[in-house]
Amino acid sequence: MLSCIISDVDEEEETKSWKKLINIAVSGAAGMISNHLLFKLASGEVFGPDQPIALKLLGSERSFQALEGVAMELEDSLFPLLREVIISIDPYEVFQDAEWALLIGAKPRGPGIERAALLDINGQIFAEQGKALNAVASRNVKVMVVGNPCNTNALICLKNASNIPAKNFHALTRLDENRAKCQLALKAGVFYDQVSNVTIWGNHSTTQVPDFLNARINGLPVKEVIKDAKWLEEEFTEKVQKRGGVLIQKWGRSSAASTAVSIVDAIRSLVTPTPEGDWFSSGVYTSGNPYGVAEDIVFSMPCRSKGDGDYELVKDVIFDDYLRKRIKKTEEELLAEKRCVAHLTGEGIAVCDLPEDTMLPGEM
Amino acid sequence: MLSCIISDVDEEEETKSWKKLINIAVSGAAGMISNHLLFKLASGEVFGPDQPIALKLLGSERSFQALEGVAMELEDSLFPLLREVIISIDPYEVFQDAEWALLIGAKPRGPGIERAALLDINGQIFAEQGKALNAVASRNVKVMVVGNPCNTNALICLKNASNIPAKNFHALTRLDENRAKCQLALKAGVFYDQVSNVTIWGNHSTTQVPDFLNARINGLPVKEVIKDAKWLEEEFTEKVQKRGGVLIQKWGRSSAASTAVSIVDAIRSLVTPTPEGDWFSSGVYTSGNPYGVAEDIVFSMPCRSKGDGDYELVKDVIFDDYLRKRIKKTEEELLAEKRCVAHLTGEGIAVCDLPEDTMLPGEM
Repeated sequence: MLSCIISDVDEEEETKSWKKLINIAVSGAAGMISNHLLFKLASGEVFGPDQPIALKLLGSERSFQALEGVAMELEDSLFPLLREVIISIDPYEVFQDAEWALLIGAKPRGPGIERAALLDINGQIFAEQGKALNAVASRNVKVMVVGNPCNTNALICLKNASNIPAKNFHALTRLDENRAKCQLALKAGVFYDQVSNVTIWGNHSTTQVPDFLNARINGLPVKEVIKDAKWLEEEFTEKVQKRGGVLIQKWGRSSAASTAVSIVDAIRSLVTPTPEGDWFSSGVYTSGNPYGVAEDIVFSMPCRSKGDGDYELVKDVIFDDYLRKRIKKTEEELLAEKRCVAHLTGEGIAVCDLPEDTMLPGEM
Repeated sequence: MLSCIISDVDEEEETKSWKKLINIAVSGAAGMISNHLLFKLASGEVFGPDQPIALKLLGSERSFQALEGVAMELEDSLFPLLREVIISIDPYEVFQDAEWALLIGAKPRGPGIERAALLDINGQIFAEQGKALNAVASRNVKVMVVGNPCNTNALICLKNASNIPAKNFHALTRLDENRAKCQLALKAGVFYDQVSNVTIWGNHSTTQVPDFLNARINGLPVKEVIKDAKWLEEEFTEKVQKRGGVLIQKWGRSSAASTAVSIVDAIRSLVTPTPEGDWFSSGVYTSGNPYGVAEDIVFSMPCRSKGDGDYELVKDVIFDDYLRKRIKKTEEELLAEKRCVAHLTGEGIAVCDLPEDTMLPGEM
């Protein structure tokens, strides 16, 4: 079925000035987010027009036929950069030599499933995938966790992949950042390319902290442009959080297209140099962070990249009591989630004392 | 709701070296094909990274909420080139000053609806949209009809838009061309960028004629590379036609993603110069065509473009009896479809004598 893509082009390649093929693994590949993302990856808009790629697609037994359909549609699209498509239900096969692993798949939350149960169910998937990455992926694989609860899933994944640097793991908070930029632009009456330096702090949940203290509009602190402090403190964050829920109501399904766009943004932020003076948000492993955030969790923070796939944390950010207090709350939640999955991170017996349900609307 | 996009950036613009904004109208904007297509248009991959665009989205009353959701997701994606999004159920509003009209929306064929009835139902939609384009669109608007039966819908549309040149109307056969290239590459065991000069002749239906006589693999006639004449004559065309049906079986829905890719391909073929010696297929108005095809229908033929949005027909193609006979059959079908919609093209009373059902599997 796949031979229109998988053909003997290797000898041919050596005569061209293409970059070396890279393997990109995607889980949940038959789902709607992937249905957008895979075509973006294959078109070259993520890794560039001279970067041939192989897509390794991970599905489930249930979704296998749909996965075949996705592969056929990728074939029919004749993407010149897409040199190979493999579909499988075995993470050890899919992650073999992967240089990027985009972990989209997770069990969605059905009615009546509590967050603690979801943490356990999905945590087991990410523990297994961490082990598989550890065994077969490139030693420098970059892992982007999208399946929710993504911060703690990323923590579980990296704890099960001790041979891969923990800083290679990311939890996606870029859609939150994009939504925050959009809301700030809307309130200020400017086009959104004029909004910069927006950080999402903490967990991809309702405790997330979109930071308007450090954010800038036209280079000025947001508070100098948007003087409505009440809006910033009370409405802004809620608007960002509730966006997904409003979309579900309107659209009847979750926001797959804009999620896929934000995954593209997140990857491009790691493979292209960050514009001077700006930064981007990513949920990354807290190890020696300069903000006083608890160590050994996955926490969204402001990052910069030289474009080499790596990042460094931004140092010149400021805090006030309001921001500190809210960062504390999302930190506490992530520490509670961590206690809840101790059995999956090799840290003993799980104790689950999650205070309340903080799943984002639209992701339940 | 849309002000994060629609903001007062016009003054700003004059200081930048952007191209002038173009209006792109899309019908069926809340559907799955559009859900892929709109994000491709907004990202710049169709019209280029320096071309700001406005998206004018046409939906129905039933789909209006979903359309609001689509617009919100476009906002959340922060596309720098997307300067305006308008949603409406009024074609006269949506097509105002449109330079491109991508007509995706059409009633899908429900169980028990005959092709003649579908021609009538959808024909009325395209007659109305033709009138609206005629009244308010740019005088040089390019119209791409995707909603099926697309050839005859395009004919109806152009007949109702007498102030717009008939050659500006296209019916999409690019997905068929892409699928044909994929199947030829598969059979020949080559990568698909080595397949060129593939024409789809005629109707976007099961009478379509994927042309292996003029097609080339590595610059050689296909018949010199694929010596299996039986496969070419008996299996190849069927494989192309049935691809959509197989995909529906696998995937549980129609192939929206690859259709959107083929729409992008079709537009890019008109706005970028065609590579030397190659051509692309598009369903276009037959007026003085060099192939002996009946005049005054919309027929897919080989085209070349200088990249100015216009095209010319390719002259140096060859025919044999097999190809002529099959072209005759798809021509007869289009003439029968035309008689069936005479009441919509201003040519009198419709007489419907469609011989058999030739809707493509996967589009019923």
